[in-house]
Amino acid sequence: MHRELYNPSMPAYATNMRLKFPILALTLEIITIILFAVFVVYDDGKHGGHGAHNNATHHEEKTAQNPLTLYPMFQDIHVMIFIGFGFLMTFLKRYGFSSVGLNLLLAAFALQWGLLMQGLWHLDNGKIKVSIFKMINADFSTATVLISFGAVLGKTSPVQLLIMTLLEITIFGINEHLVANVLGANDVGASMIIHAFGAYFGLAVARMLYRPALRNGHENDGSVYHSDLFAMIGTVFLWMFWPSFNSAIAEPGADQLMAVTNTYFSLAACVLSAYAVSSLVEHKGKLDMVHIQNATLAGGVAVGTCADMNIGPFGAMIIGFVAGIVSTLGFKFLTPILASNLGIQDTCGVHNLHGMPGILGGIAGIVAVALGKKDGSAAMQGAALASSLGFALVGGAMTGLIMKLPFLGQPPDQNCFDDSIYWEVPEEEEGEESLAHGDHSMNKAEA
Amino acid sequence: MHRELYNPSMPAYATNMRLKFPILALTLEIITIILFAVFVVYDDGKHGGHGAHNNATHHEEKTAQNPLTLYPMFQDIHVMIFIGFGFLMTFLKRYGFSSVGLNLLLAAFALQWGLLMQGLWHLDNGKIKVSIFKMINADFSTATVLISFGAVLGKTSPVQLLIMTLLEITIFGINEHLVANVLGANDVGASMIIHAFGAYFGLAVARMLYRPALRNGHENDGSVYHSDLFAMIGTVFLWMFWPSFNSAIAEPGADQLMAVTNTYFSLAACVLSAYAVSSLVEHKGKLDMVHIQNATLAGGVAVGTCADMNIGPFGAMIIGFVAGIVSTLGFKFLTPILASNLGIQDTCGVHNLHGMPGILGGIAGIVAVALGKKDGSAAMQGAALASSLGFALVGGAMTGLIMKLPFLGQPPDQNCFDDSIYWEVPEEEEGEESLAHGDHSMNKAEA
Amino acid sequence: MHRELYNPSMPAYATNMRLKFPILALTLEIITIILFAVFVVYDDGKHGGHGAHNNATHHEEKTAQNPLTLYPMFQDIHVMIFIGFGFLMTFLKRYGFSSVGLNLLLAAFALQWGLLMQGLWHLDNGKIKVSIFKMINADFSTATVLISFGAVLGKTSPVQLLIMTLLEITIFGINEHLVANVLGANDVGASMIIHAFGAYFGLAVARMLYRPALRNGHENDGSVYHSDLFAMIGTVFLWMFWPSFNSAIAEPGADQLMAVTNTYFSLAACVLSAYAVSSLVEHKGKLDMVHIQNATLAGGVAVGTCADMNIGPFGAMIIGFVAGIVSTLGFKFLTPILASNLGIQDTCGVHNLHGMPGILGGIAGIVAVALGKKDGSAAMQGAALASSLGFALVGGAMTGLIMKLPFLGQPPDQNCFDDSIYWEVPEEEEGEESLAHGDHSMNKAEA
Repeated sequence: MHRELYNPSMPAYATNMRLKFPILALTLEIITIILFAVFVVYDDGKHGGHGAHNNATHHEEKTAQNPLTLYPMFQDIHVMIFIGFGFLMTFLKRYGFSSVGLNLLLAAFALQWGLLMQGLWHLDNGKIKVSIFKMINADFSTATVLISFGAVLGKTSPVQLLIMTLLEITIFGINEHLVANVLGANDVGASMIIHAFGAYFGLAVARMLYRPALRNGHENDGSVYHSDLFAMIGTVFLWMFWPSFNSAIAEPGADQLMAVTNTYFSLAACVLSAYAVSSLVEHKGKLDMVHIQNATLAGGVAVGTCADMNIGPFGAMIIGFVAGIVSTLGFKFLTPILASNLGIQDTCGVHNLHGMPGILGGIAGIVAVALGKKDGSAAMQGAALASSLGFALVGGAMTGLIMKLPFLGQPPDQNCFDDSIYWEVPEEEEGEESLAHGDHSMNKAEA
Repeated sequence: MHRELYNPSMPAYATNMRLKFPILALTLEIITIILFAVFVVYDDGKHGGHGAHNNATHHEEKTAQNPLTLYPMFQDIHVMIFIGFGFLMTFLKRYGFSSVGLNLLLAAFALQWGLLMQGLWHLDNGKIKVSIFKMINADFSTATVLISFGAVLGKTSPVQLLIMTLLEITIFGINEHLVANVLGANDVGASMIIHAFGAYFGLAVARMLYRPALRNGHENDGSVYHSDLFAMIGTVFLWMFWPSFNSAIAEPGADQLMAVTNTYFSLAACVLSAYAVSSLVEHKGKLDMVHIQNATLAGGVAVGTCADMNIGPFGAMIIGFVAGIVSTLGFKFLTPILASNLGIQDTCGVHNLHGMPGILGGIAGIVAVALGKKDGSAAMQGAALASSLGFALVGGAMTGLIMKLPFLGQPPDQNCFDDSIYWEVPEEEEGEESLAHGDHSMNKAEA
Repeated sequence: MHRELYNPSMPAYATNMRLKFPILALTLEIITIILFAVFVVYDDGKHGGHGAHNNATHHEEKTAQNPLTLYPMFQDIHVMIFIGFGFLMTFLKRYGFSSVGLNLLLAAFALQWGLLMQGLWHLDNGKIKVSIFKMINADFSTATVLISFGAVLGKTSPVQLLIMTLLEITIFGINEHLVANVLGANDVGASMIIHAFGAYFGLAVARMLYRPALRNGHENDGSVYHSDLFAMIGTVFLWMFWPSFNSAIAEPGADQLMAVTNTYFSLAACVLSAYAVSSLVEHKGKLDMVHIQNATLAGGVAVGTCADMNIGPFGAMIIGFVAGIVSTLGFKFLTPILASNLGIQDTCGVHNLHGMPGILGGIAGIVAVALGKKDGSAAMQGAALASSLGFALVGGAMTGLIMKLPFLGQPPDQNCFDDSIYWEVPEEEEGEESLAHGDHSMNKAEA
């Protein structure tokens, strides 16, 4: 069985990809192009109709003079989506091609589908007018999929993941419409509708796809030295550009500056607490790369809902500080419990980076609105959080059931976390190594 | 022969670099500085003279109020040039230093030379006034060289490459002037004047430098696992910032937004078709990193000429969709034929990423102009495409002949695709070396 | 001793980190949050009080209409700080986690502390109003710490480094106030107050922490192939975004464009001279990655002070050209002398990248002001350079003495340049495979 992991002649079901995957990908893209031909036009700066009073249109009116005002922030967010999420997941030693490659595939489809699924709720004379603002929102919907991808990383086929993308974006569109337009809740940085939603959706999928055989881990479910460095590229780009993520759709001017400021300081405070707690809970006070790669970002998640609220820079720092602690403790103590007791195998620990900090952000938003830091209703904030969690858990569970359908090419247990099942993988440099470190290999069992 | 590849005592001609390369680099830079002292001044926002009616001046007038309006887009393009092209080429297992290092060297020279070669056609009272707009154009001219570099990657010396840069930029300047100012053709995203030009120029050079001994491949002409991940850094940055590349010099306002929109969706559609076709044509339906790294970008190339034309978002998606298919099929079926039948050894497959998609873009532009999607003459669009191909093939062939001059330090066949001929390469971690270089470790103390 | 380097059971003192580091990090962050609660508020665009006439306020008034005007440049600088500096230092084969990870930790603390230490000199009705301009300055103060970090890289504990950050930022704040507000000197790109200051501060610390046992080098003080490629990520991002660094706080409009232009061309010229000299001085004319990673950036440092002065593009190029030569020669000839004769072990060679080019920049500034290229006093420029060097050397020496306190967890000589003393390091790929794939190596010939 061990041999099989690296044997170039893959087991029979892997070969199924040859027709299933291309047919699905081409079909989805052709349908999308047809829907675009029917519904999507360039933004001409003129907006009317019944949607005229929501935030989006308001924002778009402001930028009508220069339609590219938001473009630099859009590109920052684009980097978060494609480099940030993509490389963050390259920490796995043998799954880097899939991490960054499938991230690109899913995101490229998700942003098209997201534009449709969000735009259909706000048609303008029967059309979706593409502005930078709408592209940012399409990138946002993409983020939910990539968060969920983290929960099931290494254990799903590209076909399954495309199905998940299709369904998750659709459900996201409903919840987002409900939260933003029906409930009228604040969630500028999307702690609730992106982070909590994406995390719990992914966890529900992971629960449905539970693999008892991986209860005791998997040989490939770990990093090597350079894969951890690749992952840091993702971490650092996410960390740097998070202020753009949380402020891009804020009201231009003072509110937007406030969102940048709050996020910047929340993240900075979060780094200190994440490092401190990582050292505190680890063997001999050493830092753990898993915590550093992930928990340092929890401050960006948790300050999301409050980002454009008048909570003061120090208020943002307290949120970030707490998020760094909660997230690190989650990685250390909660993830193993979720896996062993609840059957939730969360590959990237999205519960700790997006789930709990997302809920923390939602609660902070309730409190901040109750304290009058922003116009709004604390009850509606609470309803928004509940809605996001409800849609995520129910939607994720349903999606997970669908993904379990046997013909979707789910990889067998022994091929999990291994690129070679879906990718042509080059011969590795190794061979060479077997000489020098012949003795070294004995340490392996200790790892 | 195997030993020689890694033997620290290089063959005699490698040592030639010690004088040739520094003398050439210093001489070129000193000449450039002198030309700058004579011709180049800061942009003072005042423009006059006979060039007043071309696009550039028009653009510059618009940005005179805030001369840094285009700066964020310029930086996106800068990232494409230096990170995008540089890391895209690091896929080779032993040629990463040269890929990213020579990319930096050539680009740093090319942008200076490009500013001169483009500016001399549009002197303003005898001077070239440096604006962000002109810096973007200098980066564009640089792109042509880096595309051609891809075709000859691993088989040329730094001296040869500096000569190529000098000549290619000069010829590019002539063709660009002809296409933009004489023919008045549209090519906002430069499918023709950059991508097709750069690719066919490079292919013509590669033909001249044909190496029969590499007919059956070369041990080092391939990737290892982590080199493919480094290459993905390049791919993803190119992919993300391509909308800036295609829109930077578009008319500010609606046209520029249209160029961003078209490019964004063309690229997204291209990803789906490239992945699908890669899986379709590969062994057991697996994805091939070469396709993913390159063909996913073909949509950006192919939509270039049409980017600011009113082709509709779905029109852009169709272009991207087709480009992804054509490019992937090219890598799979055409590249081997070019190498075996035509003697064109195209290391990075620039024919598939820039050549065919560039022609596709040029043809799409002819059709779009004929259909009235943009003011212009379909005949002039066709002439622009023909001119770009003609200058590329003739210029490239002449340049290749010059590069063949024996004293330019071309590496011998067995040292191709190997950094160690031009770089100090560190001892490698592993044991590989202990085999190949049992004796080598003694040199370590000297280090 | 060799075994110890890799032995998972670390020597006793490493375990000290478990309490010292978390307590210090948490305490610093809590104190910082309290100071923010007292002093720091959002920028409301209204500025008054005695500080009304300095550059910062002037700048802030101009951007009051759109408080995010500088945001794209801020993000470029953010990338330089976190990706640029962080990855530049990953060249060490076994110290990548610390390089990019401690860079993140120190920078996250430094930007908070820097905002306070700079802001306290310019209180506005008793408050520090956070604008993008102030965030840029906080990132600037961070840069000094990261430069100094380069000098002591691999030889200091996180606790020592947090202490260094605290003290260096504080001293930086004093010198910056003196140079900018008391002396009224020009230093828009901060050749003097950031680069020379950070370098000589770090060198003074390094002198205090001199380790005679490392006189003949250290096994881990070197790169491997892929660590050099990671470092190039840092180099290239620094190189590309340096124009933002040097122009961000320039007067908006023509001056800012001039600063961009000068930096862009200085860097381009610097690349050519650095490559040429690297080849000239190296064994058989080969290029040395250390030079390429560092000396190509010296042009950005050296043109800093003059960036917004009317020195002409060719003037900037001459500065960059000279800086590339000086820096490369420094790496080759001066660094070994500093180590052997003066007891200054400068891990990253910051003397060559920031020290000498910083002084060169300061001198160029004196000359340029004397020649009337910018309003100002050559004497004050000279005083600013002297002040920066003085504060750096005295402050660094004092800081180094404090860092030597035995309970700060300085690593023993044999554990220098090794992540595993402070980080959980994954088993490396190699070795392991020789067990699992003993048979695998036979496939190699097939490749």
